[in-house]
Amino acid sequence: MLKYEHIADELENYIEEHKMQQGDKLPVLQELMSQFSVSKSTVIKALELLEKKGVVFQVRGSGIFVRRHKRKGYISLLSNQGFKKTLEEFQITSKVIVLDVRKPTKEAALNLNVNLDDDVFYVKRVRFIQGQTLCLEESYFNKSIITYLNNEIISESIFNYITEGLGLNIGFADTFLHVDKLNEEEAEYLGLEAGDPKLYVESIFHLTNGQPFDFSKVTYNYVQSQFFVQAIL
Amino acid sequence: MLKYEHIADELENYIEEHKMQQGDKLPVLQELMSQFSVSKSTVIKALELLEKKGVVFQVRGSGIFVRRHKRKGYISLLSNQGFKKTLEEFQITSKVIVLDVRKPTKEAALNLNVNLDDDVFYVKRVRFIQGQTLCLEESYFNKSIITYLNNEIISESIFNYITEGLGLNIGFADTFLHVDKLNEEEAEYLGLEAGDPKLYVESIFHLTNGQPFDFSKVTYNYVQSQFFVQAIL
Repeated sequence: MLKYEHIADELENYIEEHKMQQGDKLPVLQELMSQFSVSKSTVIKALELLEKKGVVFQVRGSGIFVRRHKRKGYISLLSNQGFKKTLEEFQITSKVIVLDVRKPTKEAALNLNVNLDDDVFYVKRVRFIQGQTLCLEESYFNKSIITYLNNEIISESIFNYITEGLGLNIGFADTFLHVDKLNEEEAEYLGLEAGDPKLYVESIFHLTNGQPFDFSKVTYNYVQSQFFVQAIL
Repeated sequence: MLKYEHIADELENYIEEHKMQQGDKLPVLQELMSQFSVSKSTVIKALELLEKKGVVFQVRGSGIFVRRHKRKGYISLLSNQGFKKTLEEFQITSKVIVLDVRKPTKEAALNLNVNLDDDVFYVKRVRFIQGQTLCLEESYFNKSIITYLNNEIISESIFNYITEGLGLNIGFADTFLHVDKLNEEEAEYLGLEAGDPKLYVESIFHLTNGQPFDFSKVTYNYVQSQFFVQAIL
C-alpha cells in the first residue's frame, strides 16, 4: 500500500470516528498535512482517491466535504465484489459447488482475452448473508495470472487472496447488469421460486496494468440484496 | 465548459473515430499537446477526467490505454440519467403524467435537505425507448434551485435544460437500487403484468457545490433495460 493510500484510509477512519455527516467540511490541507505529518502532494493524492471512491467531494475555492448518503446493508457496485468491506457488519459465508481447471467458454475467453485452449479456473459458489442466500456466482479466472486456488481460499474472500496472497494490484472493473426471471436451477440454489425476479450481474475485473483476470456472472437473491453507486457526473 | 473538458470530449471523439479498442494505447502526452495545441496540464486534466469517466486507464510508466467494454444499448449507472448520451442511437421520448408544485414528502425533504413547507417541483413521467416503455419516473426538484419547469421542458431531457438553460453545474449522484416485483400501477404504466420483475432506482443528484437538487425514483421495464458501470477499484 502506497503512502497516500494509507493516508486515504486514515482519513476515512477519521470521518467515521468523528461521525461526520453529508456536507460536513474536512480540515484544511495545512491541518491535514500536520496531523498526518505528510507532504502536501500526499494529502492531495489521498483526497483525490477519496473523491474517486465517493467518500468526499471538492468544491473549488471552498473546501472538501463529506459525502455520506450510504445506507446500511447496501452492496457497492463500485468496489471489488465488495461484500467484505461494504457488508462488514454482516456475516458472509460461501458454499463451494465447483472448483476446477478447464477450458473457457467462448464468452469467457472473449472477456478474459485468452485463447479457447488456455486454462482457466472455474469457480461456482453460493454466497450467504447472515445464513440467507445472497447470490449464485460463477467465475472464470485466467490461470496464467491467478496461478493457484483451492477450496479453502474460495470459501473466503477470493479478492483478499488475490491482493494479499498473490500480491496483485486490482485496477478496474466493467460491470453489466439486467433484471430477469430466475430459472429452475437458479431458484433452487437461492431458495426461491422459478419466475421470481433476479438481478444478473456480469463483471470483468482487470489488474492495474489492464489485464482482465476474472470474468464473473452473479445472480442475486432479490429479497436479500440492495445496491448503491456513487457517481461523479 | 472548461478547456480541459472540451479536450476530453475531443479525445473521446478521437477514440471513437479511430475505432480504438480495449487496451489500445493513446498517443503520448507530447503528441496530444501539439495535436490540440494546449498545455501539458490541460491534457493531464482531460485525461484524468476521462479516467474518472471510465474511458481510459493509466498504467504508471507505460502509458494511457482505451477502456472499451461498452455494450450497445446499455444505460450507464454513472452518468446523469444518461439516456440521451448513452442511448443516443435510440429514440427516447417521454409522456408527462404529472407536473406540479407541491410540498415534499418526508422522504423527499430528507433527501433534498429542504423543509417540509418548502416548495418542490414534482414530475411524474413514463419514458419510452423506440416506442417501448423504458421506465416510470417520479422526481422531486428543489424549487429554490430548479426555479422553473414546464411541460415542454420535461418532455425532453431535463438535465440538458438544467445545465444549458439554467447554467447549473451537476456534480455527483448517490444511487440506490434493488430488484422487486411490479405493483398494479407500475405494471399498467409499463405495459407489463403485476408481479413481473422490476429494477427500482433511487438517486439523489447534487450540484458541484454539494447541494442536492433532484431526488428521483425510477422503476424500469426489465425487458427493455440493461445497465453498465465502469469502476476504478
